[in-house]
Amino acid sequence: MNFLHEDFSYRDLKNILPDDLPELASEVRKLIINVVNENGGHLGSSLGAVDLIIAMLRRFDPVNDKIIFDVGHQSYAYKILTDRFDRFNTLRQKGGLAGFPRMSESPCDHFNTGHSSTSISAALGYAKARDLLNEQRNVIAFIGDAALINGLALEALNYVQEINTKLIIVLNDNKHSISNRVGGFSTMLARLSANKNYNKLKAAIKEYASEGVAKKLEAVRDQIKNLVKPENMFDDLDINYWGPFDGHDIASCETIFELAKNYDAKPVLLHFLTQKGKGLKEAEQDPTKYHQVAPLSSRKSATQSWSNAASAIVEELAAKDERIVCLTAAMSTGVKLENFRKNFKSRFFDVGIAESHMLTMAAGMAAGGLKPWVFIYSTFLQRAMDQLMHDIALQNLPVVLMIDRAGLVGEDGDTHQGLLDVSWCRAVPNLKIYAPCDYNSLKAVINHAANCTSPIMIRYPRGNLPERVIYNDNNFTSHADSLNFNAINEIANGNQWALLGHGVTTHLLLDVRAEAERQGLPVPAVYDLLRLKPLDDDILNNIFNKFKLIVTAEENYLAGGIGEAIAAKILDSNNNIKLKRFGISDMCVAHASIAEQREEFGLTVNNIIDSCKNYI
Amino acid sequence: MNFLHEDFSYRDLKNILPDDLPELASEVRKLIINVVNENGGHLGSSLGAVDLIIAMLRRFDPVNDKIIFDVGHQSYAYKILTDRFDRFNTLRQKGGLAGFPRMSESPCDHFNTGHSSTSISAALGYAKARDLLNEQRNVIAFIGDAALINGLALEALNYVQEINTKLIIVLNDNKHSISNRVGGFSTMLARLSANKNYNKLKAAIKEYASEGVAKKLEAVRDQIKNLVKPENMFDDLDINYWGPFDGHDIASCETIFELAKNYDAKPVLLHFLTQKGKGLKEAEQDPTKYHQVAPLSSRKSATQSWSNAASAIVEELAAKDERIVCLTAAMSTGVKLENFRKNFKSRFFDVGIAESHMLTMAAGMAAGGLKPWVFIYSTFLQRAMDQLMHDIALQNLPVVLMIDRAGLVGEDGDTHQGLLDVSWCRAVPNLKIYAPCDYNSLKAVINHAANCTSPIMIRYPRGNLPERVIYNDNNFTSHADSLNFNAINEIANGNQWALLGHGVTTHLLLDVRAEAERQGLPVPAVYDLLRLKPLDDDILNNIFNKFKLIVTAEENYLAGGIGEAIAAKILDSNNNIKLKRFGISDMCVAHASIAEQREEFGLTVNNIIDSCKNYI
Repeated sequence: MNFLHEDFSYRDLKNILPDDLPELASEVRKLIINVVNENGGHLGSSLGAVDLIIAMLRRFDPVNDKIIFDVGHQSYAYKILTDRFDRFNTLRQKGGLAGFPRMSESPCDHFNTGHSSTSISAALGYAKARDLLNEQRNVIAFIGDAALINGLALEALNYVQEINTKLIIVLNDNKHSISNRVGGFSTMLARLSANKNYNKLKAAIKEYASEGVAKKLEAVRDQIKNLVKPENMFDDLDINYWGPFDGHDIASCETIFELAKNYDAKPVLLHFLTQKGKGLKEAEQDPTKYHQVAPLSSRKSATQSWSNAASAIVEELAAKDERIVCLTAAMSTGVKLENFRKNFKSRFFDVGIAESHMLTMAAGMAAGGLKPWVFIYSTFLQRAMDQLMHDIALQNLPVVLMIDRAGLVGEDGDTHQGLLDVSWCRAVPNLKIYAPCDYNSLKAVINHAANCTSPIMIRYPRGNLPERVIYNDNNFTSHADSLNFNAINEIANGNQWALLGHGVTTHLLLDVRAEAERQGLPVPAVYDLLRLKPLDDDILNNIFNKFKLIVTAEENYLAGGIGEAIAAKILDSNNNIKLKRFGISDMCVAHASIAEQREEFGLTVNNIIDSCKNYI
Repeated sequence: MNFLHEDFSYRDLKNILPDDLPELASEVRKLIINVVNENGGHLGSSLGAVDLIIAMLRRFDPVNDKIIFDVGHQSYAYKILTDRFDRFNTLRQKGGLAGFPRMSESPCDHFNTGHSSTSISAALGYAKARDLLNEQRNVIAFIGDAALINGLALEALNYVQEINTKLIIVLNDNKHSISNRVGGFSTMLARLSANKNYNKLKAAIKEYASEGVAKKLEAVRDQIKNLVKPENMFDDLDINYWGPFDGHDIASCETIFELAKNYDAKPVLLHFLTQKGKGLKEAEQDPTKYHQVAPLSSRKSATQSWSNAASAIVEELAAKDERIVCLTAAMSTGVKLENFRKNFKSRFFDVGIAESHMLTMAAGMAAGGLKPWVFIYSTFLQRAMDQLMHDIALQNLPVVLMIDRAGLVGEDGDTHQGLLDVSWCRAVPNLKIYAPCDYNSLKAVINHAANCTSPIMIRYPRGNLPERVIYNDNNFTSHADSLNFNAINEIANGNQWALLGHGVTTHLLLDVRAEAERQGLPVPAVYDLLRLKPLDDDILNNIFNKFKLIVTAEENYLAGGIGEAIAAKILDSNNNIKLKRFGISDMCVAHASIAEQREEFGLTVNNIIDSCKNYI
């Protein structure tokens, strides 16, 4: 490292000679690659944004000016260069730097992100606050091309005209979402990228830049207006469009930023072309694979993931039923639909980062006679709750929602936790909710869902399938072409107390049972709540009659969770029994390993034993 | 009535002479005006769409073709003309026709709506189903200009290119949302409306139409392409744009539809200009006022509405604090912000139908130092849940959410019920939830919210403030410039049983208490849960210690509701007491009066008394 050092500050950036900047960029990239290989994280977009970030930090004041990163997974270079170099090796670790911007981390971070497409709305809010409070500052939304097609960003673009004030939108166009980008707006960006004015504009800017920016600003401005003709959506929206520019040419980027700073009190969009994965050959060649990577140490895994298993089972069904179609929203690699995409091209739909549209289109497909299967992470389902309620549930349409990454997700941190789906979806009428805990129960509920005529949600966690087999053929009765099973199943017998889990917590509770046995405590029975909604009152009442202490454990917020549902059921029955609920209390759950997060919220064998043993 | 009669069928439409169609349209309009004046409903957009709907029904088959109305409040004429003339006087009444399309009502309705901007996504789903199932039919999305700027519709427009199949989008441009329309896309539509090609195109179409459409289709197509140049967003999105056309000239509309039917297997957008309120002078002149109207019989009300009271109190605060800004999403008349808009023009933001953007922009404003107050109906908050969680709650930003129309809403029916906000928001960390039950408690919580540094939600119902005064000065202690109050307040004393309500149910429970007294039953205590989140454990435990039966009542789904929260709290304490919960069970709540809906779900004095008296 020649330039980066422990006390490196963004103020030092202005003292580095322009010719040395590529070397600095290279140091930043090396550090990102090393730390991400160690800790896991978002590689491709982080590497692609390094040069733009250096240019921004040389031309804007990261404390007074408000740079808002969209999604934020491209902000690693920004973190390194804004006084967090010394802590960058703690990225995504408990107590360390978050994988996304966090206001609590630095006065240079101005809006917490994680989900996409929030930056323009947030920047409009900051810009209006500046105007009303009579402050002087630049507000910059830094957004990728994939995030631009989400409804939230498009609503914000529409509203830019109403705010009608100074705002700089930096469009970091790397021609990729998590997967390939999608739709008409993306095509429009591609057309703009092929704009022949590019070279003329670049030449003009170079010329004026050499003479000093301020001097001939008026002339430059007019020339830009003439060169870049109003022939795109942004002009329709009264947003000045400048571009496209090479986002890896730091000197040019700086000139553009300087021009934008000194431009009229008007919104301007700067279109930069960058290469995802820039500086790491493998990532440049396969940007989808290197969008987000696991730590090197964990990249080879013999066990099958939940995502892999789920998609493979659905693919088997699709081979037999032509009406089955699969949808995802820029998550096809994450939810493991790449095989399905290959084998059933015409029945696969990646809508891009457009979760709301995905659910409503799935409703339309179901109304039209297809059997749509929607694959989505729990955290992103939050973006389509009205579509679930209004378009799927109220119409009672047979859409299957495959909710991946439900529960604690670990290092991605608070924005990505899957801790709301049970609370939110339990209140949705007509919807049934299943939570399998092993391969066999996953297969059973998927087969069951394939024959249902109403909406169904199947939630499963991040990570690998457990090695422990819980369900076997005895748990299922074959009926025509579907498997029947109980909504609640006794997994292990016991007395005095009964432990009610679902998904991963069924395993936790089996471990609790083993530990109770080891400690010579009364051995509890363990029940698996395979169907979370509706709960089976008869089976529950049988359980309530037999035990004096019920324990529930869930990777979901306690508020509105299954524990509360069980509490209500206990009081609906006439039993005087005790209930202990374990789950996530009313807090944000920051980045750490999943094990550390479980520890923090008491979802551990020891805590459950210790909390319960006085009651048995 | 010359044309409409009891057995009128859409098949009869083709037998009416073109010259007689204006008379038919006039009959339809008269019927709409009469019934809406009687039953309440959406007037302006319904009247504006009559001619387009007649033209569509003469050119498409409403059973085999799939016409999908966006929002659906403009579909009254469609209902009348598709075999529901005889029942149209039951509009919005219990057991009668719904105010929006309902598949259960007619084989001519293909997608249930109520919320806006779903039609293009749904139509894409139907179109893809048609292609995969090898069916022959037209799919038509009928959408207004205001709905087009919502993120869901924009995501769908982006995706049209990917589906790349035959789809007809009818843009019914009446230049109005519920309030004036907003933003750059709207301006673009206005520019298109002024397009000089309009007259040339109209002439060309007339000419070819007279020669018979099919004959010279190819020529027409080319001419259209030349006349309407690619100079708008739709062309950028690879959607063929034709327009604008006069949406009240039925004959021309029919020609356009015929052309679109026979056009390539490509998506086409037909831009029609219509006048909101067409045919009713008052509505033409004040389209915002006549967007949705109450029954004539109830339009004069001496009592103040919750919405009026809330906005007036916030306006008082805004006069003293320049940082207070108010936001709404095309609901400014509904939430009664018209005065605020007038008096604080620069601090008022109507973002159009863009709920997601509104919440994230509010987060940006709060981060930038303003105090944003967001006014939104409970049902529309469903469209911005991730923005509430991800942008406001996780960042713990002081945004105040004024949740209007929380609880049962009556005649607007299932799509508009405010029955999810408590269940969904209780699980959101950092958020506090208040539910005032009278003017004084409303004022107290609003004043309290003005001084808070974390997100706050205040829910209040549709309709007028109750005449009964529950809170008085004794309930509040003045502290600096804010009022302090207990989270849970004893409203009336009693023994053996305690009734826990909030908002409107506190009044219901006071009536239960009076009835118990009248019947000579033990008189229950009544408590008001002014703060729903977090619940106050100490006060609750005191209550649990004193009574043997607790009753909760709420206008919210029971799943995840306050009753379940209280159940969990009872079991967390060590009391062996009984709980009876009243609220909305796991069903859709169709249109009816609010009183009828309460009756249906047992939220009545008699039902509560009858269900409880065996336990006391």
